[in-house]
Amino acid sequence: MTIAAAIAELKTLLGDGLSTAKADLEIHGKSEVHFADAAPDAVAFPTSTEQVAEIVKICARNESPVVPWGTGTSLEGHSLAVRGGVTVDFSRMKKVIEVHPEDLTCRVQPGVTRRELEAELRTTGLMFSVDPGADAALGGMAATRASGTTAVRYGTMRDNVLGLEVVMADGRIIRTGTRARKSSAGYDLTALFVGSEGTLGLITELTLKLHGRPEAVMAAMTSFPSVAAAVDTVIATIQAGIPMARIELLDALSVQSFNSYAGTNYPEQPHLMLEFHGSEASVAENAQRFADVAADFRAGEFQIASREEDRRALWRMRHDGFYAHTALRPGAKGLATDICVPISRLAEAVAETQDDLAKAPFPGPILGHVGDGNFHATLLVDVDNPEEVAAAKEIGARLAERALRLGGTVTGEHGVGFGKMAYMAEEHGDAWGVMGEIKKALDPGNILNPGKVVRVN
Amino acid sequence: MTIAAAIAELKTLLGDGLSTAKADLEIHGKSEVHFADAAPDAVAFPTSTEQVAEIVKICARNESPVVPWGTGTSLEGHSLAVRGGVTVDFSRMKKVIEVHPEDLTCRVQPGVTRRELEAELRTTGLMFSVDPGADAALGGMAATRASGTTAVRYGTMRDNVLGLEVVMADGRIIRTGTRARKSSAGYDLTALFVGSEGTLGLITELTLKLHGRPEAVMAAMTSFPSVAAAVDTVIATIQAGIPMARIELLDALSVQSFNSYAGTNYPEQPHLMLEFHGSEASVAENAQRFADVAADFRAGEFQIASREEDRRALWRMRHDGFYAHTALRPGAKGLATDICVPISRLAEAVAETQDDLAKAPFPGPILGHVGDGNFHATLLVDVDNPEEVAAAKEIGARLAERALRLGGTVTGEHGVGFGKMAYMAEEHGDAWGVMGEIKKALDPGNILNPGKVVRVN
Repeated sequence: MTIAAAIAELKTLLGDGLSTAKADLEIHGKSEVHFADAAPDAVAFPTSTEQVAEIVKICARNESPVVPWGTGTSLEGHSLAVRGGVTVDFSRMKKVIEVHPEDLTCRVQPGVTRRELEAELRTTGLMFSVDPGADAALGGMAATRASGTTAVRYGTMRDNVLGLEVVMADGRIIRTGTRARKSSAGYDLTALFVGSEGTLGLITELTLKLHGRPEAVMAAMTSFPSVAAAVDTVIATIQAGIPMARIELLDALSVQSFNSYAGTNYPEQPHLMLEFHGSEASVAENAQRFADVAADFRAGEFQIASREEDRRALWRMRHDGFYAHTALRPGAKGLATDICVPISRLAEAVAETQDDLAKAPFPGPILGHVGDGNFHATLLVDVDNPEEVAAAKEIGARLAERALRLGGTVTGEHGVGFGKMAYMAEEHGDAWGVMGEIKKALDPGNILNPGKVVRVN
Repeated sequence: MTIAAAIAELKTLLGDGLSTAKADLEIHGKSEVHFADAAPDAVAFPTSTEQVAEIVKICARNESPVVPWGTGTSLEGHSLAVRGGVTVDFSRMKKVIEVHPEDLTCRVQPGVTRRELEAELRTTGLMFSVDPGADAALGGMAATRASGTTAVRYGTMRDNVLGLEVVMADGRIIRTGTRARKSSAGYDLTALFVGSEGTLGLITELTLKLHGRPEAVMAAMTSFPSVAAAVDTVIATIQAGIPMARIELLDALSVQSFNSYAGTNYPEQPHLMLEFHGSEASVAENAQRFADVAADFRAGEFQIASREEDRRALWRMRHDGFYAHTALRPGAKGLATDICVPISRLAEAVAETQDDLAKAPFPGPILGHVGDGNFHATLLVDVDNPEEVAAAKEIGARLAERALRLGGTVTGEHGVGFGKMAYMAEEHGDAWGVMGEIKKALDPGNILNPGKVVRVN
C-alpha cells in the first residue's frame, strides 16, 4: 500500500500513458504563482473514462493521492501534488463528443480547452461563454468554478455546466444532470462537483450550455479621472439594469502595464473596458444608456472597437493582464488576489485596497470583473525579500477580512486550492465542517487532491 | 427514544407553539394531490432559527422524524409525514429581514410567501422572479427547487438563491453563500440544499436575488392550428435566441378548462401565452421577431394585454391552471406529470404523450413551460376506479421512460418527494447512491423528512 506500488500497477495498465520522467514530474509540480513546487511521483495520461476509473481504483487500493490536471493555469495551487502521488493529466482526453446546435448544448471531454471548443464551434453560430482569460481546460474550469469577463451577462461555470460524468474515489463512474435545461430530480450533484476542485471526484466528461452568437457586438474603452469614478459608474450601470456583456476595471498602473506589454497607447488613467451583445438596435440603445451614466462620472472619450479583429485585440490584451502585470516588475512573482463583494460595497472595497497598496513595498495593479463586484490586485512580490512577503501576507489577510466584513467572499473565481485554505473557517464557519463531512463520505481515504478546499481529520 | 417523548419535550419548549390538535394534524397530513393522507404526531410552529435548532435537537435525541412545511402546495407528497413525527410549520417565520435595493438582494425568513414578498417589494422597483403559480412559501420553493413560468428568462430557485441559513440534523446552524454575486470558495452548499426537500437540513433563512422591474412589459396570447404547430414555434423561438420572459403552452382542453373556470372566451384551440420584458424598444422588437416566427406556423391573431390589470388577469388564469384542470372533472384527483426534455425533443415528447392521452380512460389536459422543454399533463383520475388508477400509472411510467430516452428528466420542477422515488434509480443510476451517501453523512439518523428523495438503508 504505497505510492510506489500504485505506480508499478499503473505502469502495467497504461504503458506509455504513465510517466515518471523528471521533466514531466517537474512540469506538473509547478503552478502559475508563488507556491513552492510540489511534484507528483508519476503522471498518468489516460485516454478514456474507463482508464481514469482504473487509475483511481489502483490509487485507492494503494492509498496514493490522485491529483487532476487540466492546463495547470489555476492560481491557488490547485493542481500541485502537495502529498505526492499520481497526477492525472487530461491532455489526451480532448474530444468534442457532440454538439447539439438545436439545444444549445455540447458534450466534451475534460481536456478540451476553451479556445479549442471555440474553434470547434466557429461554423455553428454558437459560443461557449465562460472566459477566464487563460486558455484553460474545460474540466479544470468546471472543477474550479471558473468565471471571468462574461460572467456578468452569461454566468459562471456554475450556470453553464448542465451535467457531468465523474469518477468517484472508489472508481465508480457516475453521471449527473441531463440535457434538459432544468430538473428538480434530487440533489444537485452537478453543482456540488463544479467547484469541488477534484476533491470529490474526477470530471471525465461535461455537458455544457452554449449560447447563440449575438447578432451585434460592440466593445469599447473609456477613461475616468479616478478609480472611484469608474467604480461608481459600474455600480450605477448594474443598478440601472443596463445589460452589459462585459464590464472590466483597469487602474492606471494596469493601463501602463498593458501599454508596455501589448504595445498600446492608452492614456495612463483608470479605464473601463466594455462589451455589449444583442441586436443592432439594442446594442446601440444600451451603449447610449451606458454613455449617459458614464458622463455623470466624467468619463473620457469612448474608443469603440466594432470590427471583430479590433475586439479580439482588445480582449487579448485584457486576457494577458496577469502576464502584463507581472512584466511590470521582472523577477517578481505575481500574487493575484480575488475578493468579490456586493456591488454596493465595491467602491469602499477598492478604495481601502488602494490605500493598502499605496503603503506597500511593491506595485499592486488592480483590474477586475467589477460588474460582479469582483476585482484582483496583482501583488508583485520579490519572494526572496522576507519583508515584502510579510507585507503581501498582511495585505491578503486585510483583503479577506474586508471581503467578509462587506458581505462578500475571499475568492470570487480563483477558488480555494491550498492558497485560500487559511480563510475558509472564517468565511464559512460551521459550514466548512459540513463540507468536510461531505468529503469524508465521498472520499473516505482522502486520496482525491488531498490538502485542498477542506480539512479532513 | 420515542416520538411521544419528543413531543413531551417540545411541549415544554414551545408551549402554544406545539399542537397535537386533530385539526392541525389533519391539515398537515394532506397534500394537493392523490397521495394517501399521512399526518404527523404533532405540529411545531417555531418563531426563530434558535427554536428550529432546539426542535431538531430534541427530535434527533428521540429519533423522531422532522418534516418541514411551508404552505403544503408541493405536488409529490414532499410534506406528508409518511413516518409520523413532528411537522415544522414555518408560518410564524414570516419576516422580510432586509431588502438591499442597491445590490438587488433581500433576506427573508422561510415562511414568507412569494406574493407576500411581492407586496413588500412593490415600492422598490424590484421583483422576485420565480413564480411557480401557487403562492408558495419561499423556504419551500427553495427546498423543492421550484421554477415556473419565468424560468425561461430569470432561471429557477437554483439561480435565484444566493445563500441560506440551515439547521442541520444535529441542530447546528450554518450559513451558506454570501451576498456577493458569485464565489468559488469551496463546495456549493447553497445549491446542495436547494432541491434537497428538507432531507439534508431545514432552511431557516434565505438570501435571494432580485431583479429590476422591466421598463416595459407586454403579454399576449395567440392560437395555433395544432399543438405541434405551437411547439414548433417555441422551438424556433428559443433556437433563434429571442428573449422571452414567459412562453407557455396550453392545449385545446386547457383552454376549455380556463374558459370555464375563469369565465374567458378564447377559441378552444391550442395557444401560446407570452410575455416580453425590456425597454419599450426591445419589447416591440422582440414581439415582432416572435410574431414573424409564429406566422410561419400559422398562428392566429395576437391578443395583447398591455395594461397591468389585464396582464395580471391573464397570468392569474394561467396560475389557476391546475385548479381549472381539476374542475373539468368534478370528483377526480389531478395527477400533475412533469417531464422536461431538451428543446429539440419537445415536439416528439408532447406528440407521444398526446397519443397516450387519447387512449386514456380519463381527460388529460396539457400545459407547460415549454421554453424550458418542460410540460405537464394533468391526469384527471377517479381514484376509486382501479382501472383508471392503473392507466394513470402506466402513462406516468411511459412519460418517465420517454423523458429519459429523450435525454431529459422525470421531473422538471415538481421534485421527487415520494411520488417520483420509483424513477430515481433509472434517472440517476449510481449517482442516486451518491446522493444517499451524502444524506447518510449529513443526517445519519435519517430523521429529516425520511422516505423522500433518497433511499437510505
